[in-house]
Amino acid sequence: MSNPDRAADAAPTAPGGRRRLVTRSAVREAALRLFAEHGFQLTTMADIGASLGIRGPSLYKHVASKQELLAEIMTETMTTLIAQQRAAADAGGPPDVQLRRAVEAHVRYHATHREHAFIGNREIESLEEPTRTQILELRSTYEQGLRAIIESGSAAGGVSTQHARLVSYAILDMGIGVASWYRADGEYDVETLSYVYANMAAQMLGRS
Amino acid sequence: MSNPDRAADAAPTAPGGRRRLVTRSAVREAALRLFAEHGFQLTTMADIGASLGIRGPSLYKHVASKQELLAEIMTETMTTLIAQQRAAADAGGPPDVQLRRAVEAHVRYHATHREHAFIGNREIESLEEPTRTQILELRSTYEQGLRAIIESGSAAGGVSTQHARLVSYAILDMGIGVASWYRADGEYDVETLSYVYANMAAQMLGRS
Repeated sequence: MSNPDRAADAAPTAPGGRRRLVTRSAVREAALRLFAEHGFQLTTMADIGASLGIRGPSLYKHVASKQELLAEIMTETMTTLIAQQRAAADAGGPPDVQLRRAVEAHVRYHATHREHAFIGNREIESLEEPTRTQILELRSTYEQGLRAIIESGSAAGGVSTQHARLVSYAILDMGIGVASWYRADGEYDVETLSYVYANMAAQMLGRS
Repeated sequence: MSNPDRAADAAPTAPGGRRRLVTRSAVREAALRLFAEHGFQLTTMADIGASLGIRGPSLYKHVASKQELLAEIMTETMTTLIAQQRAAADAGGPPDVQLRRAVEAHVRYHATHREHAFIGNREIESLEEPTRTQILELRSTYEQGLRAIIESGSAAGGVSTQHARLVSYAILDMGIGVASWYRADGEYDVETLSYVYANMAAQMLGRS
């Protein structure tokens, strides 16, 4: 998790005493950090404003509600994941190559967007309708995309033909888990990590 | 997640108007349900008491603090998982059998103790010291136990010999993920589920 004190670096006044410009994007970054650190329920709009050095009324010029920020963050996560998975499938090539690319993209995202992953995994119940249903549909689209890649190259009789849904869940969950332990300054760089996970997935399906 | 309304079934008076006996175990079950449903931070001792139909002072006869309940729940989770993994390793047999048994136990636990799993995954930061460090050590023991099983039967040159730690993380995470989607009344019974996951793990290691 990121250090919450870093948010306080965004001081209300820039050097020279001029008011610092707060962008919509900065508001979302602040919300991302605070939701990941403290959870959506325990974060207030005042907290988000305070981390940017602005007061509530100024914040509401940028964003209507905490709920709007959560919806944006979770929608962006799923649309990014789906776009990357589609790129892997649409480029064609042998089924094992498609599988590896899809797994590599999945693992890379979870290693490099740990805050998005925390929020995505924890806050589905905090979303209001219709966004909650939309996000669940995007998740389903993403899972089915991986399942289609798995099924496209299944060797008859292998674990993947009988239980493609479980295989797809297992591969997604092992990648999602990366977000909970990965450290950029640890033993593995993102590329090596994503390649080893893709190897594991391919081996699981008998395609290595 | 369990239905929070079910907790309210524990009425303050039993049929006949006598006071219902509240046990230590009932207190822990109530805490388990509420922590899983609302999170540790948002659950109060008064909530736990209310779900059992007793007031705060009566509750404190059973338990000193919310923190004590969280520590008990998380410690029980890890000691149960470790004991089951040790049973799989200590019974001996071929390495692939040990691996399958360990994975089956891991998946079974996460399919049947979803509330424990939610709390275990979400509330590590809510634990006070020294319990937090103790739980992290138990997790490390559990991960190393699986890694030892993986390494004990590695075929030279396979993905498991080079990256046993990542393989062990991946297998644990795919099992932990089960807690987030499994439904007892869904497509898979617990045994089938645990066998398919064990097959996937064995296949990942080239042992099927």
